[in-house]
Amino acid sequence: MKIERLSDQVCSMARAVAVVGDPWTLMILRELFLGSRRFETIREQTGISPQLLSRRMKDLVAEEIVQRVTYSERPVRHEFRLTAKGADLWPVLITLKAWGDRHLSSPQDNYLLELTHRDCGHLANPHLACPACHALVSPMDMDATMSPAMIEDRQARGAANSQTLARTRRTKAG
Amino acid sequence: MKIERLSDQVCSMARAVAVVGDPWTLMILRELFLGSRRFETIREQTGISPQLLSRRMKDLVAEEIVQRVTYSERPVRHEFRLTAKGADLWPVLITLKAWGDRHLSSPQDNYLLELTHRDCGHLANPHLACPACHALVSPMDMDATMSPAMIEDRQARGAANSQTLARTRRTKAG
Repeated sequence: MKIERLSDQVCSMARAVAVVGDPWTLMILRELFLGSRRFETIREQTGISPQLLSRRMKDLVAEEIVQRVTYSERPVRHEFRLTAKGADLWPVLITLKAWGDRHLSSPQDNYLLELTHRDCGHLANPHLACPACHALVSPMDMDATMSPAMIEDRQARGAANSQTLARTRRTKAG
Repeated sequence: MKIERLSDQVCSMARAVAVVGDPWTLMILRELFLGSRRFETIREQTGISPQLLSRRMKDLVAEEIVQRVTYSERPVRHEFRLTAKGADLWPVLITLKAWGDRHLSSPQDNYLLELTHRDCGHLANPHLACPACHALVSPMDMDATMSPAMIEDRQARGAANSQTLARTRRTKAG
């Protein structure tokens, strides 16, 4: 299966993964959130080849996650900025950072990027909370219920794959 | 630059992306969070080839994100479970889902996977909050400060790339 096919799944996670769940795309988003706007700076800080970076940037513009803005006419110069849809990806990057802080950093480089809540002055990684009662939540606090459409999609996928497998077996056997 | 090199960056986001920022890995994690434990079920629901799935599973076990548990001796059967380190990735998947719900779903398939906060009974996607004052936060509410180590790493990367570029130019010029 191609990665693009993930967007056909009746699942918001799969659809999101199909659009931004790629290491280079995530690194480009990190740069944009850190304030980088120039192609060259993003290339330097991510280490992506210019060809791949051009391709990813084009995809991000097509998905309306990034906009390409002309900031100088002579010479013609462009920069890249997150759209509102792109800025909504902030929680994804922040939760990746929090996991990296917790599990992939040594104590001496703890909090490589410090986040401070401006209103209360507290220094910490934001945590997931219930938007209704504001209590901090973890997987154990949440019940997940699949919609009928999602269940149907998963059942069809199981059935389709079983058929493919059965066909493969028949072919092999005979 | 290879994706593995990202883990050398003095940046928790880059390190996390190097380990889990791959579409197939994210899809495997989705399955494990949805309760799938068998190799075959994960293969069916993600559409990954058995070879690639084996490789990714091996990587996830090596990273201590997933553990392989023998649940039957005769015949020998294994299943996969998230470790505590793996379960800590829940916010990453949830924030991807929330973004997908908001930007990639049509109104009629809204809330493909419904999350209910058990304590208050409210149905919604968890939101990022400040762990100190519990206020819901967005990027505008947070100040980000890079540590000296992170700044130094970024400067070195900029300088190294400028040198590579200069060398390329000199070579081209003759």
